[in-house]
Amino acid sequence: MSTFGTLFRVTTYGESHCASVGAIIDGCPPGLALSAADVQVQLSRRRPGQSNLTTPRDEKDLVQLQSGIEHGVTLGTPIGLFVKNEDQRPHDYSETDMYPRPSHADYTYLQKYGVKASSGGGRSSARETIGRVAAGAIAEKYLRQAYGIEIVAFVSSVGKVRIPSSVASQNGDEDNDDAEDILSLEYAKLLKTVTRQDVDANPTRCPHAETSERMIERIVRAKDANDSIGGTVTCVIRNVPSGLGEPVFDKFEAKLGHAMLSIPATKAFEIGSGFRGTEVPGSRHNDAFVRKANGTLGTATNWSGGVQGGITNGEDIYFRIGFKSPATISQAQSTAQYDGTPGSLAARGRHDPCVVPRAVPIVESMAALVVMDELLLQHSRKTSAALLPAITTLPPTMVLPREAEKSA
Amino acid sequence: MSTFGTLFRVTTYGESHCASVGAIIDGCPPGLALSAADVQVQLSRRRPGQSNLTTPRDEKDLVQLQSGIEHGVTLGTPIGLFVKNEDQRPHDYSETDMYPRPSHADYTYLQKYGVKASSGGGRSSARETIGRVAAGAIAEKYLRQAYGIEIVAFVSSVGKVRIPSSVASQNGDEDNDDAEDILSLEYAKLLKTVTRQDVDANPTRCPHAETSERMIERIVRAKDANDSIGGTVTCVIRNVPSGLGEPVFDKFEAKLGHAMLSIPATKAFEIGSGFRGTEVPGSRHNDAFVRKANGTLGTATNWSGGVQGGITNGEDIYFRIGFKSPATISQAQSTAQYDGTPGSLAARGRHDPCVVPRAVPIVESMAALVVMDELLLQHSRKTSAALLPAITTLPPTMVLPREAEKSA
Amino acid sequence: MSTFGTLFRVTTYGESHCASVGAIIDGCPPGLALSAADVQVQLSRRRPGQSNLTTPRDEKDLVQLQSGIEHGVTLGTPIGLFVKNEDQRPHDYSETDMYPRPSHADYTYLQKYGVKASSGGGRSSARETIGRVAAGAIAEKYLRQAYGIEIVAFVSSVGKVRIPSSVASQNGDEDNDDAEDILSLEYAKLLKTVTRQDVDANPTRCPHAETSERMIERIVRAKDANDSIGGTVTCVIRNVPSGLGEPVFDKFEAKLGHAMLSIPATKAFEIGSGFRGTEVPGSRHNDAFVRKANGTLGTATNWSGGVQGGITNGEDIYFRIGFKSPATISQAQSTAQYDGTPGSLAARGRHDPCVVPRAVPIVESMAALVVMDELLLQHSRKTSAALLPAITTLPPTMVLPREAEKSA
Amino acid sequence: MSTFGTLFRVTTYGESHCASVGAIIDGCPPGLALSAADVQVQLSRRRPGQSNLTTPRDEKDLVQLQSGIEHGVTLGTPIGLFVKNEDQRPHDYSETDMYPRPSHADYTYLQKYGVKASSGGGRSSARETIGRVAAGAIAEKYLRQAYGIEIVAFVSSVGKVRIPSSVASQNGDEDNDDAEDILSLEYAKLLKTVTRQDVDANPTRCPHAETSERMIERIVRAKDANDSIGGTVTCVIRNVPSGLGEPVFDKFEAKLGHAMLSIPATKAFEIGSGFRGTEVPGSRHNDAFVRKANGTLGTATNWSGGVQGGITNGEDIYFRIGFKSPATISQAQSTAQYDGTPGSLAARGRHDPCVVPRAVPIVESMAALVVMDELLLQHSRKTSAALLPAITTLPPTMVLPREAEKSA
Repeated sequence: MSTFGTLFRVTTYGESHCASVGAIIDGCPPGLALSAADVQVQLSRRRPGQSNLTTPRDEKDLVQLQSGIEHGVTLGTPIGLFVKNEDQRPHDYSETDMYPRPSHADYTYLQKYGVKASSGGGRSSARETIGRVAAGAIAEKYLRQAYGIEIVAFVSSVGKVRIPSSVASQNGDEDNDDAEDILSLEYAKLLKTVTRQDVDANPTRCPHAETSERMIERIVRAKDANDSIGGTVTCVIRNVPSGLGEPVFDKFEAKLGHAMLSIPATKAFEIGSGFRGTEVPGSRHNDAFVRKANGTLGTATNWSGGVQGGITNGEDIYFRIGFKSPATISQAQSTAQYDGTPGSLAARGRHDPCVVPRAVPIVESMAALVVMDELLLQHSRKTSAALLPAITTLPPTMVLPREAEKSA
Repeated sequence: MSTFGTLFRVTTYGESHCASVGAIIDGCPPGLALSAADVQVQLSRRRPGQSNLTTPRDEKDLVQLQSGIEHGVTLGTPIGLFVKNEDQRPHDYSETDMYPRPSHADYTYLQKYGVKASSGGGRSSARETIGRVAAGAIAEKYLRQAYGIEIVAFVSSVGKVRIPSSVASQNGDEDNDDAEDILSLEYAKLLKTVTRQDVDANPTRCPHAETSERMIERIVRAKDANDSIGGTVTCVIRNVPSGLGEPVFDKFEAKLGHAMLSIPATKAFEIGSGFRGTEVPGSRHNDAFVRKANGTLGTATNWSGGVQGGITNGEDIYFRIGFKSPATISQAQSTAQYDGTPGSLAARGRHDPCVVPRAVPIVESMAALVVMDELLLQHSRKTSAALLPAITTLPPTMVLPREAEKSA
Repeated sequence: MSTFGTLFRVTTYGESHCASVGAIIDGCPPGLALSAADVQVQLSRRRPGQSNLTTPRDEKDLVQLQSGIEHGVTLGTPIGLFVKNEDQRPHDYSETDMYPRPSHADYTYLQKYGVKASSGGGRSSARETIGRVAAGAIAEKYLRQAYGIEIVAFVSSVGKVRIPSSVASQNGDEDNDDAEDILSLEYAKLLKTVTRQDVDANPTRCPHAETSERMIERIVRAKDANDSIGGTVTCVIRNVPSGLGEPVFDKFEAKLGHAMLSIPATKAFEIGSGFRGTEVPGSRHNDAFVRKANGTLGTATNWSGGVQGGITNGEDIYFRIGFKSPATISQAQSTAQYDGTPGSLAARGRHDPCVVPRAVPIVESMAALVVMDELLLQHSRKTSAALLPAITTLPPTMVLPREAEKSA
Repeated sequence: MSTFGTLFRVTTYGESHCASVGAIIDGCPPGLALSAADVQVQLSRRRPGQSNLTTPRDEKDLVQLQSGIEHGVTLGTPIGLFVKNEDQRPHDYSETDMYPRPSHADYTYLQKYGVKASSGGGRSSARETIGRVAAGAIAEKYLRQAYGIEIVAFVSSVGKVRIPSSVASQNGDEDNDDAEDILSLEYAKLLKTVTRQDVDANPTRCPHAETSERMIERIVRAKDANDSIGGTVTCVIRNVPSGLGEPVFDKFEAKLGHAMLSIPATKAFEIGSGFRGTEVPGSRHNDAFVRKANGTLGTATNWSGGVQGGITNGEDIYFRIGFKSPATISQAQSTAQYDGTPGSLAARGRHDPCVVPRAVPIVESMAALVVMDELLLQHSRKTSAALLPAITTLPPTMVLPREAEKSA
């Protein structure tokens, strides 16, 4: 349905041409300093018209907070918010409406509901993500204040143009799995240090300047061809405490994958070593434990991507999402009408030739929602267990000594 | 938590060395003919000891149905079931217990709960999947009887050994995205026709005989080296009606990804064209509509993998899951104890050098649970809408004519 | 939290002095003709200022529908809606703020959240119910169109003034349980026939004219004494199909009780014979089955209140809710400040001396939400079971013949 | 469905004549000392055959814990448990099966599912409550250890025989609301002090000895007449911290009412002053605040029943549940067969003439489940808020000073 989360819950509404799109965020901790500006910053990174790589539509997408906040402080009650749709007219009927757009949601929405919005695929519209981004911005502020958590996503590839060594080969020769590392040291360092400033320095939202230039060329080439091109977004989450993730069905990576694959146009998700981790033998893939400089336990490598057994281990969490090439293109396509009549369809309006730059804040927001919800769940468990008498009857390796506790 | 699903709900319990592992399946439609044999067949495909490629532990894993069935027919009430654990002794304390096993769940479970099972990572044990497989077998029987739905998973790669053309290159040169197809025609045909008999013909559960031989070599090589190797499982679901998938957060692929990434050792998921779909321009990636032989609308290609806008379109659904190389290996590893003391750890017992053959029925079961749940949700919607008076006030392209209805 | 329902889900936001109060209704069947007027009618019955028995505040409470509807027809997607708060200023600080209001939510909200709205008990404000009433009006329209379901609530008592024979004695002598009926025939007839027109004919919303006059006197007496008085609301739901209610925790009466006890100021709930049913022996309390005029099975009496074993049986559902006397009164009360200092508090502003007349549409709305949600759940079950082959292996009394089917 | 709770979740399975009845308890805090004996004590209080007032069936109902516990300590993972059914044969077909039993669930289960268990109303069987009682016993142990919470239920009435002054009149004269108190002082003292030992001292589970004698007479009279009689159970929960209850739909009393009305045979629920609270003017009904001996804030009276605005205030929580007279009676009843044919039905077997004594541990268990779940939710909120910087920008009456904190 339109609700995500167990304790930090987001419910969104709205499609392209209705009065507004919005959300209710339930379960925000009370006492958080929060203003519209905190939310607007990510909405503005998401909005169209930011560069000539995206759709020229220029929407301001100004958020209006409705409830749950007084004197700039959250009350712990639901936060209602919305953004007005500037174009609220239902779509005018035209001959192109006889065609379900290929690889779009027109056909499936009609099959599902028996009725559909005049503008097509209803809630599959990218405008629906406004509610998510607003909710994610609120979660992020809490995570930053309470734990210093940093969430940074960036464009790691456009078509076949990608940041060097960001994805290890899945095509090496069989007898030589060991010849290359899963991630290059240089790329590992990028994950460790990349900031939103770095990301926004380039219109592609790729922090690697040289690659960004080639990505721009690739996008312009698609645009000039009245075509489109896909890409991948990589995201890193730093300073997450250990212990997050709810066995067994709500493992951290399962909920994260769920969140990411609910973003329009996504087709793939991998965490840590991902598909590459299927090729490297266990002896090399295992992350050995080491004592960290601060005395706590950590891992020497991080092919696990910060999650082991579905639970965070305190290392950086990183993952990659594949966005298909946009279905809406200006060139004519041979296809069929709803009744099966063959014909040719050319898209109306103007659209993004490549969506990944604008997907960056959406990925960050969905990541924030997952971390927040899992954190609130773990807070309950830790507090509840801490109220019990100390366990004295178990072998020592079955019990965590208080001084070794790093989890939320 | 330990429950999956909204209307068809599975709740599991149990870890490695407790009395039993089991599940409660709630929401099974009443009136389904069901016996223990229906459930046992998939449990037996999952159990260890089926070939010399897997762990030599030999557990029978016989299911005992407890409730919800009378005279061999489901009552619509919860079905309780369990499988006894043959080894119910808590693990004996030993020196190896001082070490959290690398890339295992020992450390994270202890961080999360403050206490852990003597055997280590508690619910991350593969035995937990018994409850899922049993539940999936029940869902599958319904899906087969009510819709003729077929779910077939198979091993598509082990290490770098893979079925030819099962995964298109992600490493081609930039100026030539168009040089190769996303899937070869041969592989597309395999997806269309592969059966469980084909899959079980080889001990690797790879239906491509020549590749299977090479996979066996690869697994034996890992085993002989006291090492382990990962792989991928591909799954196809045929005959799914259109209209399944709940916008926006519970898109079909989001719930499917969630389900798959909740299986132990998974690191990656992709549906349809997956990561490859990020490289192919929209003009080639779009699935054009065509009138099918039976008069209904379908798509000429299926890069979407049977899902558009998060909703099934009636085409085959196919997806691929990456399983990392198993963390448990017999060779000694340099690592640290819980208190940070460096040392060397060698695994106790004997384990699967490669888990993907046994993962096949688990993947099928989780797929069945997702389809079943989304189907029950859509049944409610369709029935509810059908009770309303016909819509007469909308433009024709906004309403589905009754004769065009193909959805559940 | 702020969400109610499984398939028909309502999420509300807002408190007294924020920008607006509103709701998102998710899961509304597609294809329902719906306009703001459909929603407004119940909001207007709920708003203050309707008679001199209620608070003189005059708020228009005009609803603004935001999404999920096009050309006057629901799309099956979430319906966002809100009502602006006319007084959006946070409450000014005053000396009375040192006191938690007795039997109000000021103290408990502060204990729960550590922070509270300046106006006091935050979401316990009656304005929160606006979202529920709007949602209920939408559910009601569906129920009426699809099943002819009628939901009518009315005021059955104010203080000790009540409709004659509406509640049987709980104080008879022990040796004579049989001396009086559970409900008088006259009252049973009222339940069978009462309409909203009858209810709205009197400002008390009591359809029994003579009793209504006495209620008015009782309310005026409370008002003149700067005091308040409680009452009960009785509700009947007619034409509900059999088969609604989800065993075991979501029995129909359990969900109904939950819904009603979530309305502010409620302290009690009973269905059918209620507390009186604890006193009448089983031999008299049992509802014998009879063949109805239309050939189907029904019951001769209806002490069950339309629900048996937690599932509706097709008879009228009726229940009664107790609303305590309002906590806000104008006379001074001896109480203590937050810090324990004793003192005297007199309420600011003007308030309803009796809330039950305005509670009527709220009760109806919550009833509609429960019926709607249970109906959508049962639609899924019925459709799913109907797709299976007919059961031929069971004894005839274990299977429902198709011709005897009356359920949803 | 068959699951109750958000963070502390119980899922039950089983009906009368299947192999076993059981439950999975998910979300139990890790580190709780727990053995089968902790669970058995309440199961034994629930089982039949405890006195000649109940059914002579003698079932041992021995619980078998399956998982989630090692060395007598909970692991935080799901606890599976079951009790074998001693009579596992499906019911033999007989002529009485042609009749749906009046006021039983035979008819409604058949309408709902289209198929039913041979023994009749499937999950409406009292045996289903075994899983709840087991789960409640686990919750109770946590609540006692972590907070010293005490939950005591007792029989407050059987038919018209009741503990003096336990329920104030609802039939006084209109001009004299003030003549009697809501609860007598004596009864208030009983609520404050009653223990399970007091309750179990009498076979009726009524702690008031003289009343118990009269209840026995009443039950024996029903039994001798081949009839049945209902009653009420009152429950008090002491030492609950303030702050529990989730606005707005999951108010504490709403969830409590939901839990109680999900117990078979319940028809009514009231908390605190209940229906009586509708008759007493606000000026007398309000609970004034006072400084308690320990310096914290409390209330002088407790007509609220420990809950204000849906949130606990730290005072005792007390409530009352009405159980109808059992539907199964040995005398012949005029009724109709499934096909409408009139006839006469006499119940098979032997049954409880009065269920309230055995309902006592069920009520306590459901109460424990509600408190536990609301407590785990509040633990998350409190911990999450405590990690934020102190609020410095709000007026002092909007913020709870740390020293005034009493909530969970």
